[in-house]
Amino acid sequence: MPYELHYWPTIQGRGEFVRLALEAAGAPYSDVAREEGGMEAMEHYLSSADVRRPPFAPPFLVDGRIVVAQTAAILMYLGPRLGLVGKSEADALWTHQLQLTIADFVTEVHDTHHPIASGLYYEEQQAEAQRRAADFRQSRLPKFMGWFEAVLERNPRNAGGAAPHLVGSRLSYADLSLFQVVEGLQYAFPKAARRVLKRAPLVATLHSGVAAHRRLGKYLASERRIAFNQQGIFRRYPELDG
Amino acid sequence: MPYELHYWPTIQGRGEFVRLALEAAGAPYSDVAREEGGMEAMEHYLSSADVRRPPFAPPFLVDGRIVVAQTAAILMYLGPRLGLVGKSEADALWTHQLQLTIADFVTEVHDTHHPIASGLYYEEQQAEAQRRAADFRQSRLPKFMGWFEAVLERNPRNAGGAAPHLVGSRLSYADLSLFQVVEGLQYAFPKAARRVLKRAPLVATLHSGVAAHRRLGKYLASERRIAFNQQGIFRRYPELDG
Repeated sequence: MPYELHYWPTIQGRGEFVRLALEAAGAPYSDVAREEGGMEAMEHYLSSADVRRPPFAPPFLVDGRIVVAQTAAILMYLGPRLGLVGKSEADALWTHQLQLTIADFVTEVHDTHHPIASGLYYEEQQAEAQRRAADFRQSRLPKFMGWFEAVLERNPRNAGGAAPHLVGSRLSYADLSLFQVVEGLQYAFPKAARRVLKRAPLVATLHSGVAAHRRLGKYLASERRIAFNQQGIFRRYPELDG
Repeated sequence: MPYELHYWPTIQGRGEFVRLALEAAGAPYSDVAREEGGMEAMEHYLSSADVRRPPFAPPFLVDGRIVVAQTAAILMYLGPRLGLVGKSEADALWTHQLQLTIADFVTEVHDTHHPIASGLYYEEQQAEAQRRAADFRQSRLPKFMGWFEAVLERNPRNAGGAAPHLVGSRLSYADLSLFQVVEGLQYAFPKAARRVLKRAPLVATLHSGVAAHRRLGKYLASERRIAFNQQGIFRRYPELDG
């Protein structure tokens, strides 16, 4: 049975990290809320009292009787099933840790345009957003990217000169997610992204390596890939870019 | 060999979720940074280029050759070793999902007093904090607590009237963490916590049930339990409470 991914149908958002893993592996899945009646199906899991273990929020994955929410937990669940994580407990744990740090990074990106409340419009918190985005560009963005660069530098399997990976010498879901973060940063903060990537050359090379992945390249060029837009996590507000 | 927990020595913070699990299980551990030379040991893992898989930030756990960071990942690692999680993959995954939602909740609590930048003082972002805290009290706090209440209601093992648990009929690390969140909310937002707990009676009962745990009760009364204070995640600023 194909995996069911439940996520908002008009944005990349957090669901995209799951889409990239499913697409890179060529796994059969349906992107439920983008199909007819799919929003009702998603709503059922979120609000029906019949669901014993309800998701707090999308995205969530349904695989038979299993319902998994939280992006990082979904990827941890899918990783071994899709061949996108190493087999040892240590590798699985480390890959998950990287993903959890990406999740924190993504929350901070979101909060650059919504530092006060997700329920308010950007325009209602623009002054605060400018302060928060300045701190993000000057302090948090270099800290996160510097850490991922250090992780790539210290992975002994990256010594050869081939496309680097975060864990070992094979593509993992964390590589796909870091690719997506770079894509998003280049959309939302083109100036700040250019500056920070200059000091994170291995992250930049990982990004181009993932983009060249055959199946993923097809996906990125397809209509299944939703374009970045101003409703997602990564939004382009020039006043927030430095 | 005892587990090594590395975390800031003067606050509960995120490290406390790990301390509670270790203490409830009676596991041998050292709280490294609270011992002589411990800050240097923590700093080593965070900044030495010799560390192949460096933590992004404390807390992190060292268990022989394994170094695990990210609170939720640490608890996932410790859960089966300490008997604080169910044995099936489904239970382990669900418990981890609950923990990841607690992690999101805790980040939002932190951001009520630091909505602009962790590197600035509260006083430098107090106006923004008041806006963000109002949204937290009115919207996010009831949403998170309502979800945990629903999870407790829908756990069929809670039907008997005994102290409820989030997963199955035994204490898990997620129960300990939800206890800690309630403790923190009662410290930081005494008025808002009272209001929200009235509508989440199972969460309130879980909280008292965990407090009555024999080993944990001893820990909470000991000097090992650091008091809440104004450097931690949960801080009492009366102007942020409604």
